[in-house]
Amino acid sequence: MKQNRKIVLSESEMPKQWYNITADMKNQPQPLLNPGTREPLKAAEMEGLFAKELVAQEFSSQRWHDIPEEVLELYKIYRPTPLVRAYGLERALDTPAKIYFKNESVSPVGSHKLNTAIPQAYYNKVQGITNITTETGAGQWGSAMSVACQHFGLDLNVFMVRQSYDAKPYRKVVIKSYGGKVHASPSALTEYGRSLLAGDPSNRGSLGIAISEAVEMAVTNPGTKYTLGSVLDHVLLHQTIIGLEAEKQMEMAGEFPDKIIACFGGGSNFAGISFPFLRHKLTGDGNSKAAGLKLIAAEPAACPKLSRGKLEYDFGDTAGMTPLIPMYTLGHDFAPEQIHAAGLRYHGGGRIVSRLKADGFLDSIAVEQTEAFAAGLLFAKSEGIIPAPESTHAIAATIREALKAKESGKSEVILFNLSGHGLLDMAAYEEYLP
Amino acid sequence: MKQNRKIVLSESEMPKQWYNITADMKNQPQPLLNPGTREPLKAAEMEGLFAKELVAQEFSSQRWHDIPEEVLELYKIYRPTPLVRAYGLERALDTPAKIYFKNESVSPVGSHKLNTAIPQAYYNKVQGITNITTETGAGQWGSAMSVACQHFGLDLNVFMVRQSYDAKPYRKVVIKSYGGKVHASPSALTEYGRSLLAGDPSNRGSLGIAISEAVEMAVTNPGTKYTLGSVLDHVLLHQTIIGLEAEKQMEMAGEFPDKIIACFGGGSNFAGISFPFLRHKLTGDGNSKAAGLKLIAAEPAACPKLSRGKLEYDFGDTAGMTPLIPMYTLGHDFAPEQIHAAGLRYHGGGRIVSRLKADGFLDSIAVEQTEAFAAGLLFAKSEGIIPAPESTHAIAATIREALKAKESGKSEVILFNLSGHGLLDMAAYEEYLP
Repeated sequence: MKQNRKIVLSESEMPKQWYNITADMKNQPQPLLNPGTREPLKAAEMEGLFAKELVAQEFSSQRWHDIPEEVLELYKIYRPTPLVRAYGLERALDTPAKIYFKNESVSPVGSHKLNTAIPQAYYNKVQGITNITTETGAGQWGSAMSVACQHFGLDLNVFMVRQSYDAKPYRKVVIKSYGGKVHASPSALTEYGRSLLAGDPSNRGSLGIAISEAVEMAVTNPGTKYTLGSVLDHVLLHQTIIGLEAEKQMEMAGEFPDKIIACFGGGSNFAGISFPFLRHKLTGDGNSKAAGLKLIAAEPAACPKLSRGKLEYDFGDTAGMTPLIPMYTLGHDFAPEQIHAAGLRYHGGGRIVSRLKADGFLDSIAVEQTEAFAAGLLFAKSEGIIPAPESTHAIAATIREALKAKESGKSEVILFNLSGHGLLDMAAYEEYLP
Repeated sequence: MKQNRKIVLSESEMPKQWYNITADMKNQPQPLLNPGTREPLKAAEMEGLFAKELVAQEFSSQRWHDIPEEVLELYKIYRPTPLVRAYGLERALDTPAKIYFKNESVSPVGSHKLNTAIPQAYYNKVQGITNITTETGAGQWGSAMSVACQHFGLDLNVFMVRQSYDAKPYRKVVIKSYGGKVHASPSALTEYGRSLLAGDPSNRGSLGIAISEAVEMAVTNPGTKYTLGSVLDHVLLHQTIIGLEAEKQMEMAGEFPDKIIACFGGGSNFAGISFPFLRHKLTGDGNSKAAGLKLIAAEPAACPKLSRGKLEYDFGDTAGMTPLIPMYTLGHDFAPEQIHAAGLRYHGGGRIVSRLKADGFLDSIAVEQTEAFAAGLLFAKSEGIIPAPESTHAIAATIREALKAKESGKSEVILFNLSGHGLLDMAAYEEYLP
């Protein structure tokens, strides 16, 4: 009998803990630095910007972190998400490879971002914080935070990269429908924004600039904290729910992946799907298949921080307000082309992923936008789901690997993360269609 | 322990048959008539327009119809869909009512329409048809047909109501991304379209006009058949997969609904969710709760065919090219206001639903657009999902019933169908937001 297309878990089978990979890394990632003193950042210094519990997670070396009951409850809006055997794509490619994808697009805001938005809002709420600021590039993160803040009764201000604000008109309405406030960045609401607009009133913005504005608003307003949708350790921690579910589901299918592929912006969906599997390789716990596991980060050719960046200390934002992060970076003032995958237009790779890359635990490949959209359309036609522009990069990399497998006649198991759907990005598809 | 939020079925638990309610109706719906002779329409006459097997289903009195294996396989892209206990909405309303909804919005095109698009494309393919025409109002049906036609290798032409074509720019890109061709209606591609444009070049179109154009293209081109997304018996038949799944899921929750609510355009999502439950009332099969079951069709106040229409023979389209249908109708030339819920702007109620309404098996209520959007936003904030403008009517009706239950202190069980999400309708929400 043919295997099921979707492998599903019940709510009671949802993992109850997140996985912290730093507990299992022989070479620890280097610490964040205070940009003034260049001394290792202290937790107390970070607590001005982030909720205490999130800072505690950022500095934690504990392997497993309990997921709070309130967070689990809200996860159930869309979790557990299905693991899907991509029979349609396999047929279209005529490949002997078995392709699986984790379908994070079933989230009501259309991407994996809710996985960390919910706990971030929760920990702020618990601490008595009333106001949250954040930035958004593609709009996925801003939408997710607006759902989470709405649920926990937090006021939310989202700085949205001007380019996306104009190109993705539906995204800001989504944010507003959930009760969030959204501002095109650079904006007149912050000193940094005003200074940029003074120099260039038609500044199109960038993720780095939007972060600077959100940080400025958080530090200059009492009762206000900042939240970040990727890059930092605690964000990656929350996203491991993806891979922990996928691990159970792959077991149900009787498989362990040979390759895991995800698109790469700040690293959170990549870490989320791959770290729980990678732990078997790091710990050498006897999983015989883990030794051969390959991880592939799919970057846009327009912003290839892992493939072309340098491993060094750099700022997380453009204005230089964040701590210094040891990471593969194209430079915090790098201005990538205006590709449609706005969520991948970030200059740096985060400290954990960068350490793992330096130690040879993952590969990266750079994908041109045209190849990515062609892959997205093939996926839509063969699997019925229109992927987010970001996710098309993972699909393009998957197709490359599946075609290699066809050439070599090898029946390998590929798992990729479908980080989101593209229904709010149809303007991008329109441009690509003939 | 708290009950699960989502009640899920595995793929193997998916129903293998559709339910034909006419087998259990004491008063049979009246036949369709040939508009020329006013004689009952013969199957052979209908086969000029529709695939043979669909016509056979249209004329069938058989209670259960096997779902073909190829259709089941494609259903698995998104089915079974979750049944969800709306704890968030219950809390927001502080109601003793238990509210459940069937989440058809998880379909990759965002609505229940794929449930019938897949079998319609399949039966056409089996018959050797190569080209399909159809119309679309909101765009949901056109998107669904484009997925299904793509899968079975059929060429598709979609006539999209001009009003929606302009107001919902993303929808047509979705259709194109899946490989369908889409034309604003009225168009210059048909004689009828050209005649309308000659009279009024800025004609905004209507569902009735778009149907006329799609029918004309089908009958004037060899190897081409027409498909319809609602109203007809075979469409309702396919949609019963919704209610058959929901029945299993309600059983798992230990419940039988007191009230079932769905929005009402041509009747397919309403029939889909409710007929499998109604069968227990029609057959008096000993289900003690079925006797008290109430069905509520939620119509837009701008197009209240069931609440205000007359039960009489009328055309399904504006030009008068279809058979005559015995149904509650506002007149085939009725021009409803340009409300956002384009999928509900249809003048008639179909023959089965109209018969059931005349025999007292269902109630209808008319909902103003402002009430519908307010309900939609409350649902988005409390359940995390932005509903389609059409579905907001069902939510508004559900809220009315839940507040009545609060007033009377009655703990009743309400089940409604979330026919689709609104992510492709954010322009409509934007207009409604302050």
